[in-house]
Amino acid sequence: MPDSGPAAGCHLGLDLGGTEIKAAVMAGSGTVLAEGRAPTPRSGTPAVIAAMHALAARMVGDAPVAGVGVAVPGVVDMERGVVKFVPNVPGDWAGRPLAAELGARLGAPCLLLNDARAATFGELSLGAGRGCRHFVLMAVGTGIGGGVVANGELLLGSGGHAGEVGHQVIDLHGPRCACGGWGCAESLASGPALVAAAVRAVAQGMDTDMRAACGGDVGRITPSLVAEVAAAGDRVAAELMDALAHRLGTAAGNLVVVLNPERVVIGGGLSLAGERLLEGIRRTMAERIGWYLRHAPVDVVAAELGAHAGALGAAAWARRRVMG
Amino acid sequence: MPDSGPAAGCHLGLDLGGTEIKAAVMAGSGTVLAEGRAPTPRSGTPAVIAAMHALAARMVGDAPVAGVGVAVPGVVDMERGVVKFVPNVPGDWAGRPLAAELGARLGAPCLLLNDARAATFGELSLGAGRGCRHFVLMAVGTGIGGGVVANGELLLGSGGHAGEVGHQVIDLHGPRCACGGWGCAESLASGPALVAAAVRAVAQGMDTDMRAACGGDVGRITPSLVAEVAAAGDRVAAELMDALAHRLGTAAGNLVVVLNPERVVIGGGLSLAGERLLEGIRRTMAERIGWYLRHAPVDVVAAELGAHAGALGAAAWARRRVMG
Repeated sequence: MPDSGPAAGCHLGLDLGGTEIKAAVMAGSGTVLAEGRAPTPRSGTPAVIAAMHALAARMVGDAPVAGVGVAVPGVVDMERGVVKFVPNVPGDWAGRPLAAELGARLGAPCLLLNDARAATFGELSLGAGRGCRHFVLMAVGTGIGGGVVANGELLLGSGGHAGEVGHQVIDLHGPRCACGGWGCAESLASGPALVAAAVRAVAQGMDTDMRAACGGDVGRITPSLVAEVAAAGDRVAAELMDALAHRLGTAAGNLVVVLNPERVVIGGGLSLAGERLLEGIRRTMAERIGWYLRHAPVDVVAAELGAHAGALGAAAWARRRVMG
Repeated sequence: MPDSGPAAGCHLGLDLGGTEIKAAVMAGSGTVLAEGRAPTPRSGTPAVIAAMHALAARMVGDAPVAGVGVAVPGVVDMERGVVKFVPNVPGDWAGRPLAAELGARLGAPCLLLNDARAATFGELSLGAGRGCRHFVLMAVGTGIGGGVVANGELLLGSGGHAGEVGHQVIDLHGPRCACGGWGCAESLASGPALVAAAVRAVAQGMDTDMRAACGGDVGRITPSLVAEVAAAGDRVAAELMDALAHRLGTAAGNLVVVLNPERVVIGGGLSLAGERLLEGIRRTMAERIGWYLRHAPVDVVAAELGAHAGALGAAAWARRRVMG
């Protein structure tokens, strides 16, 4: 179906990250036309907004823009289009009417959405959740974000804050979490939790190839290093990956019994560890909630959209809202 | 609005429990006309179904019945009206086409629903969730059941199994749960968990009035005994109640960050412990997810419908489905 006339303009998605701004352009038909990225300025809010606008202008050119969606790594007031709290992007964000400012610059209605919710909507529209009526996304990286789809719709809750799946407590007496709580899935099963466990193993003198892989400098241990050493057959690293999968599987199981989804989608940087991680999550769910899965089976799959999930989801969200 | 004509017949709710069958009759207008109960026969499925029919007939008399809802303490196939698994009512339930059997006897369409979901729908229609777009129910008794309301609708998930809030894991290394998992909220924060902690305290020789209250026989300790002794000022019993509230508050907090409800409704027998329990749940949520509640405040309130929540909810569910 060709796009024609102003009402069929393109839909732009912007994903504001701590190091990069990503963008996606979607036709009125839903086809993805372009993807792009630019560094996030470190010099404050006006520079960041200018960079978002410049990236958008470069991506869109002279094409009419029907709607803009912005994925924000923090708390937003979706109704008013105002940013409330953004921990990881330098600048003065609280109270910023970002939707109005960007909308005016781009000449189109602009909507804000939390970035993990945007990624969830992206997977629903274009990725691993396509055709699913009920699924949950767990995006596992430095933190654990996510989102919930119920009855084919993104679940927002009373203020758009539903889907903070990383701050479920899975260990009453677990470690302090960056959120201020303790024992959250994010404190136990995120990238930093995996790195911490690997650092301890190396520093304790365990017999592991992770020591050679980091050149003896534990500051160079990353989640991918642990995953790679595990994949190459190292027993200690494999145990760490399996412990991580057990904790993720426990958190995923919690979501399953509460939400009865058809599918659990694992995204974020750690999902690149692949089938071993997914298999560990499936095994844990079978151990812990096998009674439930007998009546309510669930698939565990990897996310499909990678690093552009947020921008694609934001574009799809704008399209959905503008086109109704 | 007067009820007239066959389409405006009454709606009957039946709640099948391990010891009692409860019933409620609702007018087409939504007004509750009558409530009743009868013992659950111990002699097998045909006797139980006959007792449900007899109670229904006694409640309804000659009035036309427009719809019947049945709350089942287990797993049902909602689409087909077939029971799949009922652990606590003697009989041969698996595969039983209960909706067809009762519907034929009562001459009206019959719908099955899990009992905790029925109670949630009851609180939504007539109780503590009235007017709420987003809430969760935790029903705390011998087990912990519950349900989720999102966007003003009962959340069913892909097969009607959403809302098993008691089988969220809150302690990775917690005790074995009746479900086969371990560390579930139900294993740590239900009536039996409270009784077990009280038995240990008494048997260990702690200085507590619970010993006198049970006449030295720990087999007589009940959740209400602990709650009453705590309310009378006993420090040990009060600590047990507060520990229970902490665990319930942790589980409730998990639901809040995932679902962003306006309200958490606490029901079940233990909710009769009252304000001390609710206050402990609120305090725990403030400690653990205070960061979240700043942007997404939530009320914690007691359920309103008591032991008839399931029957009322089942009647309301039938009415809603029949009237559209």
